[in-house]
Amino acid sequence: MTLTGQQLIGFATSVDPQKSFTGINAATGQTLEPAFYEASAAEIDQAIKLADQAFGRYRQTTPERRATFLDTIGEEILKAGDELIQLCMQETALPEARLTGERMRTVNQLKLFAQLLREGSWVEARIDTALPDRQPPRPDLRRMLVPLGPVGVFGASNFPLAFSVAGGDTASALAAGCPVVFKGHPAHPGTSELVGQAIIRAAKATGMPEGVFSLVQGASIAVGMAIVEHPLIKAIGFTGSYRGGKAIFDAAMRRDEPIPVYAEMGSTNPVFILPGILKEKGAAVAEGLAGSVTLGVGQFCTNPGLFVTLHGPDSDTFIAQTGELLTKSACGSMLTSGIFKAYQEGIKKLAAIPGTQRITQSNGDGQKAYATLLQTSAKNLLVHPELAEEVFGPSSVAVTADSKEELLQLAAQLRGHLTATVHGTEADLKEYASLLDILTQKVGRILINGYPTGVEVSHAMQHGGPFPATTDSRSTSVGSAAIGRFARPVCYQNFPNDLLPDALKTENPLKIWRLVNGEWTK
Amino acid sequence: MTLTGQQLIGFATSVDPQKSFTGINAATGQTLEPAFYEASAAEIDQAIKLADQAFGRYRQTTPERRATFLDTIGEEILKAGDELIQLCMQETALPEARLTGERMRTVNQLKLFAQLLREGSWVEARIDTALPDRQPPRPDLRRMLVPLGPVGVFGASNFPLAFSVAGGDTASALAAGCPVVFKGHPAHPGTSELVGQAIIRAAKATGMPEGVFSLVQGASIAVGMAIVEHPLIKAIGFTGSYRGGKAIFDAAMRRDEPIPVYAEMGSTNPVFILPGILKEKGAAVAEGLAGSVTLGVGQFCTNPGLFVTLHGPDSDTFIAQTGELLTKSACGSMLTSGIFKAYQEGIKKLAAIPGTQRITQSNGDGQKAYATLLQTSAKNLLVHPELAEEVFGPSSVAVTADSKEELLQLAAQLRGHLTATVHGTEADLKEYASLLDILTQKVGRILINGYPTGVEVSHAMQHGGPFPATTDSRSTSVGSAAIGRFARPVCYQNFPNDLLPDALKTENPLKIWRLVNGEWTK
Repeated sequence: MTLTGQQLIGFATSVDPQKSFTGINAATGQTLEPAFYEASAAEIDQAIKLADQAFGRYRQTTPERRATFLDTIGEEILKAGDELIQLCMQETALPEARLTGERMRTVNQLKLFAQLLREGSWVEARIDTALPDRQPPRPDLRRMLVPLGPVGVFGASNFPLAFSVAGGDTASALAAGCPVVFKGHPAHPGTSELVGQAIIRAAKATGMPEGVFSLVQGASIAVGMAIVEHPLIKAIGFTGSYRGGKAIFDAAMRRDEPIPVYAEMGSTNPVFILPGILKEKGAAVAEGLAGSVTLGVGQFCTNPGLFVTLHGPDSDTFIAQTGELLTKSACGSMLTSGIFKAYQEGIKKLAAIPGTQRITQSNGDGQKAYATLLQTSAKNLLVHPELAEEVFGPSSVAVTADSKEELLQLAAQLRGHLTATVHGTEADLKEYASLLDILTQKVGRILINGYPTGVEVSHAMQHGGPFPATTDSRSTSVGSAAIGRFARPVCYQNFPNDLLPDALKTENPLKIWRLVNGEWTK
Repeated sequence: MTLTGQQLIGFATSVDPQKSFTGINAATGQTLEPAFYEASAAEIDQAIKLADQAFGRYRQTTPERRATFLDTIGEEILKAGDELIQLCMQETALPEARLTGERMRTVNQLKLFAQLLREGSWVEARIDTALPDRQPPRPDLRRMLVPLGPVGVFGASNFPLAFSVAGGDTASALAAGCPVVFKGHPAHPGTSELVGQAIIRAAKATGMPEGVFSLVQGASIAVGMAIVEHPLIKAIGFTGSYRGGKAIFDAAMRRDEPIPVYAEMGSTNPVFILPGILKEKGAAVAEGLAGSVTLGVGQFCTNPGLFVTLHGPDSDTFIAQTGELLTKSACGSMLTSGIFKAYQEGIKKLAAIPGTQRITQSNGDGQKAYATLLQTSAKNLLVHPELAEEVFGPSSVAVTADSKEELLQLAAQLRGHLTATVHGTEADLKEYASLLDILTQKVGRILINGYPTGVEVSHAMQHGGPFPATTDSRSTSVGSAAIGRFARPVCYQNFPNDLLPDALKTENPLKIWRLVNGEWTK
């Protein structure tokens, strides 16, 4: 497969030579070939118009045909083979084992949505049959989810496969029946093009309409904004920084027609280690925590960037142990030089906040990031809440509270996060029941005696959380429930049976679960 | 029961005498006693802080206790008896039969949500059990909906009971576990207070925490904005004008923490009458349509403000018949003098658009609104899309298209509406299948051979639609699915069974439907 450096618009490539950028070898800083052209406003407009045209046919495809499309995308990604992995390793400095694992996760995500389509119940069909003799008579009412329309999706830098071109948002949007216009992340343009080519091959092979998927690339903010502001785009999926996500959200709300924005903007994922377990298993928790902080050079949105203990000899030991483990941990290249710089500056900023001590000594040399541990008191965090803001990378802040009350007060002051974790013995958890209740209000996922990194792709996963973790806490970006992002309900009143969508026909030809007159039935 | 004219804050009344306003007898224009005080900023802050405090206990109440609370609200509203109906008649000029019917609907809405709580499956429980032997191991994951937090709800003028103090948004928010701070509509302050008192009595009788409900009143925009902008408010429900709803939406999006806004802002609910049925049953459809246009003096958000036919002798007859029926229809007092004035001005504005003819002659005398019919061509509507904008009241615009293509083009140009309706014979519907497909993209509810007024409160209802009909097409303000507005999912990872909420415990003590490892089961 050949990299063109061009936009993939519908089934064609397109180039406007005015502006270009290059991929960078993340480990060496060297420029990669070829150069990539930035999508022009006209090209983006063309991609979105094609998506809108494709929507008419695509929303009418059967679930089985869309499932085959998704499965075929997975097969085509696998066919891109070692070339894809090797290029992705160069662009991201992520190791081979991680990327082959991430590729399998990406393929499995596509398969999960294909299964969901074949099973069919995701449309949430509800039927209230007519009551002609009631006064007033009740008409026949049937409700199901329908796709929103063309969706704009932004790739994340830290998951170049699973949260990028054929990642979760693309898979769930395509599953729901929405064409996708994808804005590739400039940190892995070659990976993006190879995966984009795989999607286009799959679309052609399975007879999908041209425009069901387009890939536009660019390093400028203007490329993304042209998607967000286009009147034919009906929703946005984004994973990245608070700054980027909030700018996209604000632009989308300012549109003549505001649209849903699902921006996952990361968080610090606080971990509370309660006194009993600190005494009983402190060393084991320190090991698990240090592993979670440094996994993937800390480049996960579920990275535990804050942990809280009650001050005392056990917590002193625990913090020292965690600091030692972090100091000894392997350092690594980050995804881009920009991210590395932001990590170093972020740590510098946190360390400069009064009342903050550095436990580890350095956070990187000229090339590689080192893990960092800072320490502060709960009192100081309450005065300087910016200590709870995310620094993307392998760092964490150890916070010590002087009392249970102070610990609970700190929890109550937290803003929205993707996850929160509590480590405790049975007795701890009983004594701190109110902590669990408080944290449930702050997050999308709450863990006991685990580590927040590692996000299972399944039915019960919730990857989201209250603002500022995301712009829409009602939604998940991981797991099968994500399909709900790109759909809305429509009620069909008094329709002849043969004009109804299959999901709502009286004989239930799709054999799906439906709420019929208030009872779930198949 | 005595009207105090004061705010109902928690379990107490409160008065800040700086500003007051009065209810108006909608039929006579006379001032009603007593005067009502406007809530001050301090009172609103107090109500919201009480709601936030109440949230801690209220979210932990069992579904059965919340169901009893809702049922008791209904009983207390019925106990308010004829006094409530008579006062409401004065404040709104709505007739007694309509208001006793609306009261029953309001009570039934509360009962519907009580049933939903007792049945319990609304929390959408999903369980993926642990796979400890898989590589990597899968943790135990359990996901359900939890309440968002204190909700601000705005009453609508046109449903002083069913979309006001104890209306759908209040019922669904309280059902979900969210305290409510209600902004009473200034067009029926006495009705609001009587219903507010009923809710407070029910809260006390069923042992709900103080602050679970408060009612603040006011005629100034500042009162509502103080709710929308308060950091402890986590969602907004609103039914009313585009101008009001959009201002609230914009303010909520500008907050440090943007929050969901469910604003239902009305629409013109286009009706398409196809050629076959126009010939076969034109007179009957004209009668049904005129009845729908004038129902409740046209003061419904589902009022059919636009209908479309193919130009020809049948459509000439149809429009003339509809015009005659509208001319002969009973005229009536509107809800407020402001609404009446806006109706008269709205008609004047539409009639002044070039290419528009008046079919009916007058739209009201000094006191009462008359039904209005205007006529224009599809070509003219495409040039002047403002002809498709809502004029609240008993009016409609007859649009004639010169061809099927023009009719489809007009449909494709429509913005979002709550409903769309198609009248057709079997042959019509077959020939115009693409019309149904286009309209499905534009609305929340699509009807065949019916009339859009009359919104059933049931499981399969969808009362919503794409912007500008609402600010969130993913949601409904009527029917049991409305409970989803005020909830978000949380995933519990690796929780001991006894620390899980009942809905997620392994033994399924609530006997609810749950998605366990991908299979729905009870």
